[in-house]
Amino acid sequence: MSPERPTLRVAKIREGTVIDHISAGNALVVLRILGITGREGFIVSVAMNVPSKKLGRKDIVKIEGRELSREEVDKIALIAPRATINIIRDYKVVRKHRVRLPKVIKNIVRCINPACITNEREPVEPKFYVVSEEPLRLKCHYCGRIMEWPDILASLYEGSS
Amino acid sequence: MSPERPTLRVAKIREGTVIDHISAGNALVVLRILGITGREGFIVSVAMNVPSKKLGRKDIVKIEGRELSREEVDKIALIAPRATINIIRDYKVVRKHRVRLPKVIKNIVRCINPACITNEREPVEPKFYVVSEEPLRLKCHYCGRIMEWPDILASLYEGSS
Repeated sequence: MSPERPTLRVAKIREGTVIDHISAGNALVVLRILGITGREGFIVSVAMNVPSKKLGRKDIVKIEGRELSREEVDKIALIAPRATINIIRDYKVVRKHRVRLPKVIKNIVRCINPACITNEREPVEPKFYVVSEEPLRLKCHYCGRIMEWPDILASLYEGSS
Repeated sequence: MSPERPTLRVAKIREGTVIDHISAGNALVVLRILGITGREGFIVSVAMNVPSKKLGRKDIVKIEGRELSREEVDKIALIAPRATINIIRDYKVVRKHRVRLPKVIKNIVRCINPACITNEREPVEPKFYVVSEEPLRLKCHYCGRIMEWPDILASLYEGSS
């Protein structure tokens, strides 16, 4: 029998941002929301579906050498409302916050209404108001269409920029 | 000054597959090619842009509890021709191989020709022949269109299933 190994799957980082407690299986969507493809050159570590005391299973993302802004952090709330964000300097947590859902969501979710102006060839950026947080419901600024949670999820997974 | 920390960013795994020496910044495309989204429940660890003696920088993917098949491994050759695959059991490497470019590529790359039957609503799966390995060039089975490396790359990043 093998000895038990430590469960830490991703090492500590010196400087940067740790996004912890992402709902299991959603780390790649978090990266997409942050616009991280890997080709930016930052060292990024991801662990998916790892055991968690709080959540059962969770995902973690660590971005070295980059501190996320408040605005970037809040975008993550869409897909990972229980995520915690730690800003690290010299291996220490210097700032810690929970994500907070913004009132207006721009450029992340796409309107489900095919006739909406944001789905035409016009250069109009999608924009939604949060009308309910739990379950999450969004209202399109342009056509008024209400997006239910499954629609939002589908749009996030779909991978529009 | 902080002491130097170990550079191992992702821990050893007990059982599964380690894909090492992926060209830097391409780990997420490798996951996409393998059809891994994170929602399958496997524990997956990813490290991007980490220092490498051989490649300068590289990406690594570790999939716990899943041994990739030869066919799956070969698909990776498209984006990571220098990748090495280690199959792990009880923390030991039991099989090690390099990726090998298949002669026929199915369902990964999409034909750039808008008039190609694979881009119609027909249920026809894209299929290409490898006509050159370096630089990679593919020929569409259906319309004969030659796909150059930038076209192939764009198609892989685009994220078609």
